[in-house]
Amino acid sequence: MAAIHDQIAELTRGTDEVLPEDGLAAKLKEGRPLVVKAGFDPTAPDLHIGHTVLINKMRQFQQLGHDVVFLIGDFTGMIGDPSGKNATRPPLTPEEIQANAETYEKQIFKILDAGKTRVEFNSSWMNKLGAAGLIKLAARHTVARMLERDDFSKRYKGGEPIAIHEFLYPLVQGYDSVALKADVELGGTDQKFNLLVGRQLQQDYGQKPQIVMTTPLLEGLDGVQKMSKSLGNYIGITDAPGEMFGKIMSISDELMWRYFEVLSFRSLDDISALKRAVEDGKNPRDAKFELGDEIVARFHSEAEAAAAQQEFVSRFQQGAMPEEIPEVALATEDGSMGIAHVLKNAGLVSSTSEAFRMIKQGAVKIDGEKIEDRSLQLLAGTTHVYQVGKRKFARVSLT
Amino acid sequence: MAAIHDQIAELTRGTDEVLPEDGLAAKLKEGRPLVVKAGFDPTAPDLHIGHTVLINKMRQFQQLGHDVVFLIGDFTGMIGDPSGKNATRPPLTPEEIQANAETYEKQIFKILDAGKTRVEFNSSWMNKLGAAGLIKLAARHTVARMLERDDFSKRYKGGEPIAIHEFLYPLVQGYDSVALKADVELGGTDQKFNLLVGRQLQQDYGQKPQIVMTTPLLEGLDGVQKMSKSLGNYIGITDAPGEMFGKIMSISDELMWRYFEVLSFRSLDDISALKRAVEDGKNPRDAKFELGDEIVARFHSEAEAAAAQQEFVSRFQQGAMPEEIPEVALATEDGSMGIAHVLKNAGLVSSTSEAFRMIKQGAVKIDGEKIEDRSLQLLAGTTHVYQVGKRKFARVSLT
Repeated sequence: MAAIHDQIAELTRGTDEVLPEDGLAAKLKEGRPLVVKAGFDPTAPDLHIGHTVLINKMRQFQQLGHDVVFLIGDFTGMIGDPSGKNATRPPLTPEEIQANAETYEKQIFKILDAGKTRVEFNSSWMNKLGAAGLIKLAARHTVARMLERDDFSKRYKGGEPIAIHEFLYPLVQGYDSVALKADVELGGTDQKFNLLVGRQLQQDYGQKPQIVMTTPLLEGLDGVQKMSKSLGNYIGITDAPGEMFGKIMSISDELMWRYFEVLSFRSLDDISALKRAVEDGKNPRDAKFELGDEIVARFHSEAEAAAAQQEFVSRFQQGAMPEEIPEVALATEDGSMGIAHVLKNAGLVSSTSEAFRMIKQGAVKIDGEKIEDRSLQLLAGTTHVYQVGKRKFARVSLT
Repeated sequence: MAAIHDQIAELTRGTDEVLPEDGLAAKLKEGRPLVVKAGFDPTAPDLHIGHTVLINKMRQFQQLGHDVVFLIGDFTGMIGDPSGKNATRPPLTPEEIQANAETYEKQIFKILDAGKTRVEFNSSWMNKLGAAGLIKLAARHTVARMLERDDFSKRYKGGEPIAIHEFLYPLVQGYDSVALKADVELGGTDQKFNLLVGRQLQQDYGQKPQIVMTTPLLEGLDGVQKMSKSLGNYIGITDAPGEMFGKIMSISDELMWRYFEVLSFRSLDDISALKRAVEDGKNPRDAKFELGDEIVARFHSEAEAAAAQQEFVSRFQQGAMPEEIPEVALATEDGSMGIAHVLKNAGLVSSTSEAFRMIKQGAVKIDGEKIEDRSLQLLAGTTHVYQVGKRKFARVSLT
């Protein structure tokens, strides 16, 4: 095992908070495999790369020899997750939950070692708990403390209904930590309150409270908004190799370093060395190639990663893609913008009629791909490299 | 069966509210036996006569041929009843609940027909419901609506903790109505909110909502405070015949008519006739004898009632008890008052030393019984007839 201070540097890399701050070191010093829990809501199994920040963290613990539990909240799936939402999600059927769980496993085992990952379903202890057990659990928390949670507080003050079962969800999640005797719980920053409830319940049940580690919500391709399917600024982990590679190539250099920190499996030292090389004159596009290769290889294969890079390069006609592409941010009026206006507002053409003419001539490309539809609408939240003719490029982010 | 308007007059006699107002008539017109539910918390099986106001109402329904359910909240006994309390009651063990249920049955069957009373335990459906079922139930009510309940609202605003399980109690109670398909639910006025939750849940489950009938909390022997064990102003239904009879004789004439309304099984017509007789010159003490006879006979036997009356009369030395006894209310400083001060403050003696002398001479009686203990402390909430010598009487209520 690596020295504890090295372990801590890697384990806390890219995290938002570790609570209590010195707790992780104390746990690691015990020298035994820690139970590391991360809970997943079975409602959205189609993961994007933003979700993998947390899964990568699980992988680190796993590689250090700890007992990593991928907990599927199938029981809580019947409740819906009120975190950060102003509306209650509809409950899932057992069949939907089972299908979603299988999709999850297929996706996460691209990152985690299937042989070393403990997959648990919280229904296995929650169904045993019974109505009486749930009531006893509910006796361990007060209404006032629950209403302190940010989203509940806002909804209550705003007169928006909070169904009573939503108060039970954090308790069930906390009880999962009791049932698993978790040493560490990982979760997104929006889960912090629920993770702390787990600490409290473990103490009530006579256990040592878990360490809470939160990971940030990843910025999307635009580098501004959080990555999200509905904003369109995401990389899906089932995206085709070429699409995945192209999306990574579309990000800014600054965002590239952020992605290296939270998405790459390379060590911090390695990344620092790469950063110094770029400062000393290495083409940042080549660093981005390395990131793209790593990510595509992870979700597909090394061969497909190499092919995606090759195709990307030839699409841009090797050498024709400039080293510096100007970055442009454009605000849409109602969530989308027509292609002609994008080209005009980005300064690639002088008028929309020139834009239409260039499209007709086959001289307009998006991410290296020729477009033919002059009525194409581009969505807010997307970032693409737009090209007109051989020499005019712009990386345009729509907001 | 009696005509519906006569039934309604008797059924609504002494009730606080019937909701909706015209609902009972509509239910009765259906001409079938109605399911009439009354829930009892298994924490306090030692009933006083105040609790029997509700049980008497059940008896009326039973005598009209309806299906009366005596529901023991054994499941909810594990929660504790937050109604009107600022503190959470400790949960009961299954053994305590069983013992309490048996005591209950022994007591209620002095009023209800054991052969026609359905005794149910809500654990029989609540244990089947499971944690998942309870969560679904909790999804049918909002935090805001629950916090509208008087006692919750006060506690929340006052910064006093409300445990989350307390929000589940009204839902469980409401679900009992769903499980029983109740047509009518009876409860104390303090239960109104919970009874209305039952109406709402029945509608959610596609049932016709029950009629809610609330009965008032009975005034204690002092005629002012609610009857309660802790105030000492109660008649226990296991009180000995003589004690029970004496307590009834200690009440004011005004309270006697109130007790006739809610405690007597005599018809309203019958009671009106008795009232007219008293107005026309009948000794109100004789009317009180009739009430005392009826109550003692109910909980003991007619023979014991007759003996109690006989003993009471001879204790007061037939004819020596004046027809009008002055009524005195005295405020204690810290919940009790010494006998000497009671006698002095009631004007029966001129000084406490005279009081002590009279006690020594055997000239002081309480409810006709000679007392010898000069250090006797009388509790706030009690009402007794005090006598000094042959002619001085006062009915003293301590507050």
